[in-house]
Amino acid sequence: MARSTSGESVLCRVVRIFEAFDPETTAITVSELARRADLPPATTSRLVSELVEHGWLRRDSGRRVRVGVRMWELAVRASPTLGLREAAMPYMEDLHAVVGHHVQLSVLQHREVLYIEQLSAPGAVRNKSHFGGRFPLHASSPGLVLLAHGPIHLQEQVLAGPLRVFTARTVTDPAALRVLLGGIRREGYALCEGYIDELSTVAAAPLRAAGGQVVAALSVILPRTERARGAVPALVAAARGISRALGAPVRPPRHRVTVENPDH
Amino acid sequence: MARSTSGESVLCRVVRIFEAFDPETTAITVSELARRADLPPATTSRLVSELVEHGWLRRDSGRRVRVGVRMWELAVRASPTLGLREAAMPYMEDLHAVVGHHVQLSVLQHREVLYIEQLSAPGAVRNKSHFGGRFPLHASSPGLVLLAHGPIHLQEQVLAGPLRVFTARTVTDPAALRVLLGGIRREGYALCEGYIDELSTVAAAPLRAAGGQVVAALSVILPRTERARGAVPALVAAARGISRALGAPVRPPRHRVTVENPDH
Repeated sequence: MARSTSGESVLCRVVRIFEAFDPETTAITVSELARRADLPPATTSRLVSELVEHGWLRRDSGRRVRVGVRMWELAVRASPTLGLREAAMPYMEDLHAVVGHHVQLSVLQHREVLYIEQLSAPGAVRNKSHFGGRFPLHASSPGLVLLAHGPIHLQEQVLAGPLRVFTARTVTDPAALRVLLGGIRREGYALCEGYIDELSTVAAAPLRAAGGQVVAALSVILPRTERARGAVPALVAAARGISRALGAPVRPPRHRVTVENPDH
Repeated sequence: MARSTSGESVLCRVVRIFEAFDPETTAITVSELARRADLPPATTSRLVSELVEHGWLRRDSGRRVRVGVRMWELAVRASPTLGLREAAMPYMEDLHAVVGHHVQLSVLQHREVLYIEQLSAPGAVRNKSHFGGRFPLHASSPGLVLLAHGPIHLQEQVLAGPLRVFTARTVTDPAALRVLLGGIRREGYALCEGYIDELSTVAAAPLRAAGGQVVAALSVILPRTERARGAVPALVAAARGISRALGAPVRPPRHRVTVENPDH
């Protein structure tokens, strides 16, 4: 790999340029980009020009730089999330039609929840998470589901902190979190009332792939009322449908109604 | 920009590596990747290793290479399509609930239609376009809408050919295409029966941004029956709603029912 005089590869620099963008900062001047990426302005300017040539970045009318559609296209068309998204969307739409508000699909990414799909209704409850955004595992309902079914070493890393406090209800005590994770594995869903935002309740259920391993979480964000719990059966049913569509062996429910034969 | 001995920049090579993937080929061996990207195997192997380190590519269990979730995240979270998608999704969901089958959102990208969002129902009519995939402008309904409202030089380039034939109904005669484009501008929508697939009809309408310019197309894919035309009013209404949400000045409809005051 070609390296600059500082010994850093060109690719490292390109990665840092893209990491300078976030959901709140989708357009940046070249000088601000240089500052955020910690690169010399001349280097930044040269790299930006080449990335613009390839359509990976584009310049807007205000001479600011934005992520280009070509970058999006290359990332999406062979995305590892494509199969998951296609399996999930019909169920997400039905769930959204029933519960309204926000329905989200998320995966584990670098010790955080990454939201990869979202359906929202106009006038839905306030939602602090973003499509393409991230949240800490311990504070979000889908994060707790992914953590509950994640590898032990991940649980230990996360419980070792730091555990950010979002509201007075965010659980940050490691012992309480262990109990919470056990409950999520046992019940088959997470229901977090006001953990990230005092005004909302988020319910989440695991999605499994062909090998039975949990690969994603499905969640609904609702206003924090007593009625929020009522969305759980529809959520869990949708999660089972998606898991089955992904080829997972879907187990019978834990609590079955046994109809006895009166002749016996 | 650092250059290899062949004078080609590292970034060019990285771009070629990502361009080797497509919706049908989401996992490739390093040697196949080298062949597709026209790069020496050793160079490919070195670049792949570095891209895997950054999470832009990942190796699957079969030692094949896939696009990484990190690449997807960086592309999506600051995507130029994010605002469009957020404005469109509630209307797309309502349209999908009414017409079923497939509802798609697409933009113009390098003389082709790029599909950036798609809602599909299980059991919907066969769909040859993909989420994150592309189609030629002259053969697809959203493509014709984008072309009809696109710059003149683009229309001239496309009409100058080559114009691929998909079915016996694909319009490839430049004079006939000019008439078709004029009709689409006049009517406010495109209705293509069997242009890409004999079995489907695709209706599309333009989406406008704050300046009034057409920035995207909304389309529905339906079975090719006489009833397909019945979806046009719902499609056009949804397109107007999205345009208004994007800040476009939405003009009154061309054909208005005038209610006369019986007192005059």
